[in-house]
Amino acid sequence: MGKPNFEKKLTIAVIGGGRCSAQEAVLAETVGRELAKRGAILVCGGLTGVMEAACRGAAIESGLTIGILPSDDPTDCNPYVQIPVATGVGYARNIAVVKSAQAVIAIDGDYGTLTEIGFALKSNIPVVGLNTWSLYRNGQEDKSVIKAEDAVDAVEKAISLAKGQKLD
Amino acid sequence: MGKPNFEKKLTIAVIGGGRCSAQEAVLAETVGRELAKRGAILVCGGLTGVMEAACRGAAIESGLTIGILPSDDPTDCNPYVQIPVATGVGYARNIAVVKSAQAVIAIDGDYGTLTEIGFALKSNIPVVGLNTWSLYRNGQEDKSVIKAEDAVDAVEKAISLAKGQKLD
Amino acid sequence: MGKPNFEKKLTIAVIGGGRCSAQEAVLAETVGRELAKRGAILVCGGLTGVMEAACRGAAIESGLTIGILPSDDPTDCNPYVQIPVATGVGYARNIAVVKSAQAVIAIDGDYGTLTEIGFALKSNIPVVGLNTWSLYRNGQEDKSVIKAEDAVDAVEKAISLAKGQKLD
Amino acid sequence: MGKPNFEKKLTIAVIGGGRCSAQEAVLAETVGRELAKRGAILVCGGLTGVMEAACRGAAIESGLTIGILPSDDPTDCNPYVQIPVATGVGYARNIAVVKSAQAVIAIDGDYGTLTEIGFALKSNIPVVGLNTWSLYRNGQEDKSVIKAEDAVDAVEKAISLAKGQKLD
Repeated sequence: MGKPNFEKKLTIAVIGGGRCSAQEAVLAETVGRELAKRGAILVCGGLTGVMEAACRGAAIESGLTIGILPSDDPTDCNPYVQIPVATGVGYARNIAVVKSAQAVIAIDGDYGTLTEIGFALKSNIPVVGLNTWSLYRNGQEDKSVIKAEDAVDAVEKAISLAKGQKLD
Repeated sequence: MGKPNFEKKLTIAVIGGGRCSAQEAVLAETVGRELAKRGAILVCGGLTGVMEAACRGAAIESGLTIGILPSDDPTDCNPYVQIPVATGVGYARNIAVVKSAQAVIAIDGDYGTLTEIGFALKSNIPVVGLNTWSLYRNGQEDKSVIKAEDAVDAVEKAISLAKGQKLD
Repeated sequence: MGKPNFEKKLTIAVIGGGRCSAQEAVLAETVGRELAKRGAILVCGGLTGVMEAACRGAAIESGLTIGILPSDDPTDCNPYVQIPVATGVGYARNIAVVKSAQAVIAIDGDYGTLTEIGFALKSNIPVVGLNTWSLYRNGQEDKSVIKAEDAVDAVEKAISLAKGQKLD
Repeated sequence: MGKPNFEKKLTIAVIGGGRCSAQEAVLAETVGRELAKRGAILVCGGLTGVMEAACRGAAIESGLTIGILPSDDPTDCNPYVQIPVATGVGYARNIAVVKSAQAVIAIDGDYGTLTEIGFALKSNIPVVGLNTWSLYRNGQEDKSVIKAEDAVDAVEKAISLAKGQKLD
């Protein structure tokens, strides 16, 4: 008889567009691989583009992938999602994607990604950005989205922030 | 016996922070008044700050106000909401606020407002901004949020856009 | 200059199937008419079947109709909805339909209606039933769904319950 | 380098009240254990009562447990949930709980459980019941909730149905 597992696992959300360029797909796949190598669970929106590339990277390194889908059909997910969550609540699932993680990595992305960044920041969940949105409020830059230089840098920053560590 | 009313009414969403300065409250109240004077229904998130000020303005001019609440309790709304919609879906209600309107006026606002701007733009619903977020993607400005000079300008632009008219 | 309207209006939800027989449509239309005659706002799911018939009845008597839609497109509603709320949250909108009312009238209906009955009862919102679900828990009848004899009886019971009055 | 995991895993939802008697807790814990022994992933609402007992049972047998929470705080879950999904959509998460599974086991339960049964049946997801709701529509029994005799019977029926097999 085993012992119950009380520990919550390190979980990082990867967000980005449902369509992406080949270059961004490489970036997302590398992020997925680097997360899996460090034992993090990858949570995402479960669909195509950045989401699929990140899941593919994680799956290659045998990492666990969770896809939180807008539809109510768990088979709508990309083939690298191991645990599909079929929310049935449409793009309200964007909230669940970021709230289920301890940190978020945003890669490129369109307006949907912007809503996820907003929901994460609203809840003080750290967001690390790779070629993504910059925000100005009333003419002043809001530096809450922490810029990363490359995939490894994004993963390392996200994991540090997820663990509550300060960045240098 | 009356005839059924087939016409959908002009509906404008006003979004902004749950807390706001006195200056922003005046701006929001003026927006609410000007919308009501032009016969538009005001839809908002139903709570305090910019939302309450805008509803107060509309109520003063006998305009109709709809408050789409995060909670499942219709009495959570500000006193100027005539029709509370208690969604029970938390901040997923941000989607409903903008999707129920033909155009959106954003006044100042925090990350919640940013998510509403994102959901509106994702659905090609025009957004007019007063002292609110500016967006840059990959270093380039995204000019989708149309800047207004004052409350009257915002209302006129929003109504024109809601009717599918081009701005000069 | 008018005074702000502080009073929340009497709002009754009508729930039932998106497809219904001619007999049920007559029942629903009568419910809608009787609600409007008594000044109640009708809130529903905004689609076809029982929802459309009830809205048609209310519109005939110049009553106000609100349709809380699953989709994010306000034009998805039936032609008798005056105020469409496009939630974008799919069938999670069932919660909003019942929570926005002070009492619920269930007419016939399928499993979606069953979920609305459940959400209403979970929140102690009274449910009056016309040819709808009966519930048994562990072999014992749950009499929370109050049976009505006809449309007028349903409307009168719902309005009494909405006002916090006890039934005879 | 591993191969991507294309296979979706057998996932069963366990639904029931947030409060439950000692007897029901034993039933739920046994259901959780029997699911884990058969390699099924357990998905539930992540909270107390039947949900916690089922997760505890699964955790004892080293099964994987997913808790789909109403709140936006992943730490709101019971200690036996390994993967919390913080939806932030309130009881709209009931949809996600059942839609993420291939079959549902309902144990006792209150009106929230009734809504989950409704959402499952609406989507043709099989529901196996242990001491739970029985449904009558217009006076006729709706036999969609398949009765089980005990925990093992419920688990075996749910897994057969999840795999698309007919029951004897």
